[in-house]
Amino acid sequence: MGDEASYDLSRRVEGLRSSAIREILRVVNRPDVISFAGGLPAPELFPTELLGRLSLELLQSREAPQALQYGETEGVPALRQRILQRVPFVPGSFGLEGALVTQGSQQGLDLVTKLFVDPGDEVLVETPAYVGALQAFRFFGARVTFLPCDAEGVLPGALAEALRRRPKLVYLTPTFQNPSGLCYGEARRAEVAEVLRGSTTLLLEDDPYREIWFDAAPPAPIAGRVDPARAVYMGSFSKTAVPGLRIGFLLGPPALVRRLVLAKQATDLHTNTLGQHLLLRLLSEPAFEEHVAGLRRIYRARRDALHGALERQLAGRLTWQRPGGGMFLWARLSGGGDAARLLERALAQGLAFVPGGEFHAEGQGRDTLRLNFSFSGEEKLEEGVRRLERALEGFAG
Amino acid sequence: MGDEASYDLSRRVEGLRSSAIREILRVVNRPDVISFAGGLPAPELFPTELLGRLSLELLQSREAPQALQYGETEGVPALRQRILQRVPFVPGSFGLEGALVTQGSQQGLDLVTKLFVDPGDEVLVETPAYVGALQAFRFFGARVTFLPCDAEGVLPGALAEALRRRPKLVYLTPTFQNPSGLCYGEARRAEVAEVLRGSTTLLLEDDPYREIWFDAAPPAPIAGRVDPARAVYMGSFSKTAVPGLRIGFLLGPPALVRRLVLAKQATDLHTNTLGQHLLLRLLSEPAFEEHVAGLRRIYRARRDALHGALERQLAGRLTWQRPGGGMFLWARLSGGGDAARLLERALAQGLAFVPGGEFHAEGQGRDTLRLNFSFSGEEKLEEGVRRLERALEGFAG
Repeated sequence: MGDEASYDLSRRVEGLRSSAIREILRVVNRPDVISFAGGLPAPELFPTELLGRLSLELLQSREAPQALQYGETEGVPALRQRILQRVPFVPGSFGLEGALVTQGSQQGLDLVTKLFVDPGDEVLVETPAYVGALQAFRFFGARVTFLPCDAEGVLPGALAEALRRRPKLVYLTPTFQNPSGLCYGEARRAEVAEVLRGSTTLLLEDDPYREIWFDAAPPAPIAGRVDPARAVYMGSFSKTAVPGLRIGFLLGPPALVRRLVLAKQATDLHTNTLGQHLLLRLLSEPAFEEHVAGLRRIYRARRDALHGALERQLAGRLTWQRPGGGMFLWARLSGGGDAARLLERALAQGLAFVPGGEFHAEGQGRDTLRLNFSFSGEEKLEEGVRRLERALEGFAG
Repeated sequence: MGDEASYDLSRRVEGLRSSAIREILRVVNRPDVISFAGGLPAPELFPTELLGRLSLELLQSREAPQALQYGETEGVPALRQRILQRVPFVPGSFGLEGALVTQGSQQGLDLVTKLFVDPGDEVLVETPAYVGALQAFRFFGARVTFLPCDAEGVLPGALAEALRRRPKLVYLTPTFQNPSGLCYGEARRAEVAEVLRGSTTLLLEDDPYREIWFDAAPPAPIAGRVDPARAVYMGSFSKTAVPGLRIGFLLGPPALVRRLVLAKQATDLHTNTLGQHLLLRLLSEPAFEEHVAGLRRIYRARRDALHGALERQLAGRLTWQRPGGGMFLWARLSGGGDAARLLERALAQGLAFVPGGEFHAEGQGRDTLRLNFSFSGEEKLEEGVRRLERALEGFAG
């Protein structure tokens, strides 16, 4: 049953790969393993009690039938309005016609790729790049070009040169990137925006970590600085509210969003309405902003715990930048070496992390590793670094 | 802003069309219009109170963190187990490895099409066919061939002939089809299965209305009668539970489901976990089976009200078969004519329905109309038929 060779599949299937992260996560369900591998928010910080009360109130209200019925593909209008009030743009930058609720921001990637990418089309990404985006682009046959980055973000000159080839999309995650934690400063954002204004390529800016900042609020998105007809901005409530609702959003020019709506209609009709109504109520609670402030405080302490432990114990073996927000610390093996091999040794010590290779072009970035600090408490983070230290003992690279 | 001509979109976009239904639904939000147009279940029959209690219990339980966290792409394992217990197949026909929770059954269509269809590939459908499936197939550039049907279902001879061309998929909805209401009898199912057993084309059977039967439970699916390596079966909880959770499922051979899981990962990571956990609890309530029995009873009364009113008032003008289940009655203008033009006259009388053209190949089926009976109570159904009668007065076709 199911002899694989005998299926006459689409050419697209060649672009299908399982993410190494997914395979690692399968392994690390052992309770003795400390996981720096996933990208999970801390479940003990979920606004569970509040959501319980709100779900009961919702289902006892006059809105209950609407919250359980089929809905508009665009999303619940009141939620789209609320999203427009929350986003970091000058009011009026995007209108209701330019706002689409998506099934997590991953769906925004699927829909934009469907709309733009034919097999062989070029898509520009940063080095390293978010692996979920790479999966979506490659599934539709995109040729992905990794652009060089420094500590401030993508290099404007390299971007300008690549844009001359008229690629279909340029995908940027300038704010506390997964995996690198990098946040572009104000000056680099301005330079990148200027380069983009000279091009007809669509900017796809992915911004799920914006509200999870630790030291200072990040500068405004790049999408608000370019031709509004050439920018799509994606956001998510997976990090600030909860991931299980699978609610993200996408803002863009109405002429594009109209087509993205049609594409979404053919994909899943609409995002789950119960989750949309529940999120709308959550966003309307004064306690929600306190909740997000609490996340910042606790994740900051975790970042500090990981960064501090690394400084004390592994300053000679790893190099890294302290991330100003998000959920990840990105490190490099000082003496070079293969982080995938280090992972094997770390797993033997009871620690999991993600080797950085898969965030890069084939064969690149083998000496990098992504360490998640949102999921584990401070003690576990410190113990995890001790395990990493043991894994590095005698590791030749 | 957003000058459409200036976007360099994928070739796929040419396959994007808005459904006429969607356009009609936009018009009929006027409270004075009786709508036979949508395909909505009756919101007053939703198990709202039960869901309110269950959602509070869930979010106060130890499972709450899991119900709000990221989840496995395959779906919540306990829900997949429960689905396998409920489906109309011999136990063991499909295993856990062959079960995928989807974002409504529309997502099953998107994923299977992604996996199989390159531009120009042939897909076989019935005449008429479900419009959401047509949207998914056409979006990926499929050449859709409509097979002739009689009152028992697709014609086995025509199917056999078309299968000789080795199309990629054959999409069948043998049980209370949307739009036709048709349910294949036991004999036709057996004949169709025999034809399919002689082919390597994948059967995609869509079965969302199975539990909404009025006179007798429908025969077993065709998917259980063919080579298990060549069948994918899709189901939904949108008609029995509520549509707003957007939870459907797909069963198939593990070798295919494994790839569908990868495709789903690149599409939206996973289906919303809150909805999955809530549905799991709902399916475990003894009251749920009573709820479904109640739906059958009330929808049967509505079917009878619509059928009876048509018999009394429009027997000369329309021909139809009384549907044995589902949500739709499918009628034909006895004297021919264009149902889209009739719709204009009906809207002037305060009645909406869906002209049948778009369920057919271009230019076909203009004399057909789809009348929904699940959304309106019996009085409204009778008043709607009076309005339809007035619209037909002097309608030359």
